[in-house]
Amino acid sequence: MSASNSSLQSATLAELATPCAVVDERKLQRNIERMQRRMDELGVSFRPHVKTTKCLAIAERQRAAGAVGITVSTLKEAEQFHEAGFDDILLGVCIAPDKLPRALALCQRGCKLTLVLDSLATAEALLAFGRDKHRFDVLIEIDTDGHRSGVEPYADLLLAIAQVLHDGGVTLQGVMTHAGSSYNCRDRAGLEALAEQERALSVLAAQRIRAAGLPCPVVSVGSTPTALSATHLDGVTEVRAGVYVLFDLVMAGVGVCTTQEIALSVATTVIGHQAAKSWAIVDAGWMALSRDRGTQRQAVDQGYGLVCAEDGTPLHDLIVIGANQEHGIIGRREGVDGGRVDLALAMPVGTRLRILPNHACATGAQYDDYALLSAQGGISKLTRFRGW
Amino acid sequence: MSASNSSLQSATLAELATPCAVVDERKLQRNIERMQRRMDELGVSFRPHVKTTKCLAIAERQRAAGAVGITVSTLKEAEQFHEAGFDDILLGVCIAPDKLPRALALCQRGCKLTLVLDSLATAEALLAFGRDKHRFDVLIEIDTDGHRSGVEPYADLLLAIAQVLHDGGVTLQGVMTHAGSSYNCRDRAGLEALAEQERALSVLAAQRIRAAGLPCPVVSVGSTPTALSATHLDGVTEVRAGVYVLFDLVMAGVGVCTTQEIALSVATTVIGHQAAKSWAIVDAGWMALSRDRGTQRQAVDQGYGLVCAEDGTPLHDLIVIGANQEHGIIGRREGVDGGRVDLALAMPVGTRLRILPNHACATGAQYDDYALLSAQGGISKLTRFRGW
Repeated sequence: MSASNSSLQSATLAELATPCAVVDERKLQRNIERMQRRMDELGVSFRPHVKTTKCLAIAERQRAAGAVGITVSTLKEAEQFHEAGFDDILLGVCIAPDKLPRALALCQRGCKLTLVLDSLATAEALLAFGRDKHRFDVLIEIDTDGHRSGVEPYADLLLAIAQVLHDGGVTLQGVMTHAGSSYNCRDRAGLEALAEQERALSVLAAQRIRAAGLPCPVVSVGSTPTALSATHLDGVTEVRAGVYVLFDLVMAGVGVCTTQEIALSVATTVIGHQAAKSWAIVDAGWMALSRDRGTQRQAVDQGYGLVCAEDGTPLHDLIVIGANQEHGIIGRREGVDGGRVDLALAMPVGTRLRILPNHACATGAQYDDYALLSAQGGISKLTRFRGW
Repeated sequence: MSASNSSLQSATLAELATPCAVVDERKLQRNIERMQRRMDELGVSFRPHVKTTKCLAIAERQRAAGAVGITVSTLKEAEQFHEAGFDDILLGVCIAPDKLPRALALCQRGCKLTLVLDSLATAEALLAFGRDKHRFDVLIEIDTDGHRSGVEPYADLLLAIAQVLHDGGVTLQGVMTHAGSSYNCRDRAGLEALAEQERALSVLAAQRIRAAGLPCPVVSVGSTPTALSATHLDGVTEVRAGVYVLFDLVMAGVGVCTTQEIALSVATTVIGHQAAKSWAIVDAGWMALSRDRGTQRQAVDQGYGLVCAEDGTPLHDLIVIGANQEHGIIGRREGVDGGRVDLALAMPVGTRLRILPNHACATGAQYDDYALLSAQGGISKLTRFRGW
């Protein structure tokens, strides 16, 4: 690439200006198909979370593979995807009352938008706002693992919210949960147990709502680790997952993918060395990699990322041990005894590398676009958006 | 704000769609003037690092206060600022050889661009590229604290690089260093000692180059902590600093600002609670705050940020204890014994707060613009850019 990557079309990997976010098309497509196949086998509908990529072209691939609707994390995402022809959208974060006018505007433009809430306060704000204006579709968020939001499935509060919503004229669609603590799982047994907990507690919540004579057609669950670990999903109607589409080092550490399945990497160039320390300095710092250190508390700490040759082959004992804004420091993983490597010889100034990231959602968010690398080696541009 | 913050003009703080990055204009201006006054007292020229804000309007304030030239961390910054009328630009990251065509194009458009390098390999690549094309201005990076890049000031390599550059026809401007380990300092004595080390070792490097009969007019040093801690700067010609313009919790932890001087905050809205855990959930997750956890190893760990009331008053025992992509979890700082607070009562759904960030550079980078909050309470939009 002679200048910046403002036009990625018809470049090759070696011509990309670095740093640059590269998506391997074959791995992307395999990840999409693997998840959809699994959902089909489990007999549930799949609603991918598009917050990971915020990329229309990737969401279209997910839809083409069989996904029904999408999940988003912001109204901006809902607006952008609706404008691009996605009609069935779940906003998976509890709605703030002052965002209701934007949500209403989206519904009035024909979007089937479903909102989420987990409190009487928000339920009442939604009813007060919607009265004479719109009959919102709502899921009640259930807390199935204590990691963040949601109503306890056993709580009286659950039925109180459901009753208030129903009486107030809202379309009570059902319940949703996200077992985000699955990111802390470390083995298959733990993953299967958490997937079953997520399923059983959300189904219990739905059964309690139905037993109270209220509607609850939807039971929506999901996270990438639990989606890939559930042995059955009886009572669940749909699953949501996001990061599976690219995978990352955190998911490899959790055990639901291999490093070879990670579709996202950051292309970078060696700009110097500290020979006495066996360091190489690259032009991918935290601005290019993100500050995410999700593997810090896993069994294998990958620093700011795992170093690969330009062709994607992992150089297994080399990681990004430190990062400043536009500098990454490559060094040997702590505790690995492989003798001193002269990185100035092994990767001289100008050497091009690729870094596998801790967290695909955070790393992708540092870029306006991905460079999609085809099986034939061609590069095309996939545009992302951001903001709220 | 009725919709998104696409038009920030003439809004008020309470009308901003959240999450949103707010810059307090009075604090910004005081921070700019404080640093310039200090540089004037120390008798050095000041070249602010604009990577912190990537914002033309803020750089113009720094220039109006007396700054001479700017420092940038990417060619994109150099191009954007040159186009906006900044002519004297130091690219403070060692240049990758394949970026030289872009650097040359900038010089040919009339920019006085100074490049940095710390290896013979890059020096030779620059000479090979520049021959018959351009006489580049170059600073040699000196390693004065071992934290990252640069040549040791005592090393034979320093003189070898200087000689090669000079003989090859490059304009050898001098030396530069960045004592980035100052971010790990914890007290005044440590800061003063590191500032003196940064000064003395860079001046030593310059003296060695001059003693070899080579030119070295520029001795450029700097980081926010050392710039604010140096007791004298004999032999130094210019200082660079970036984050001082906004300050952040890491700088408060280092001891070079108070939390009241932090000009950047993230406006957010409470969207739920976990009453049994004394948590409030807000709509500022790591996408809004960044993944930066720079205070993690400081004496006071501020989590993902310090919680303030909407008027900016710090609520000192409340921090963002956890963050997912679009969820922040507010809770009591660990080890603080203040009894149980019912956050559902103290900050009901819809309550607006402001979060002071760990790292102003990383948090700002999550946004396309800042909402500048004037002393009169008015809001105007300051545009940022990003990319490479």
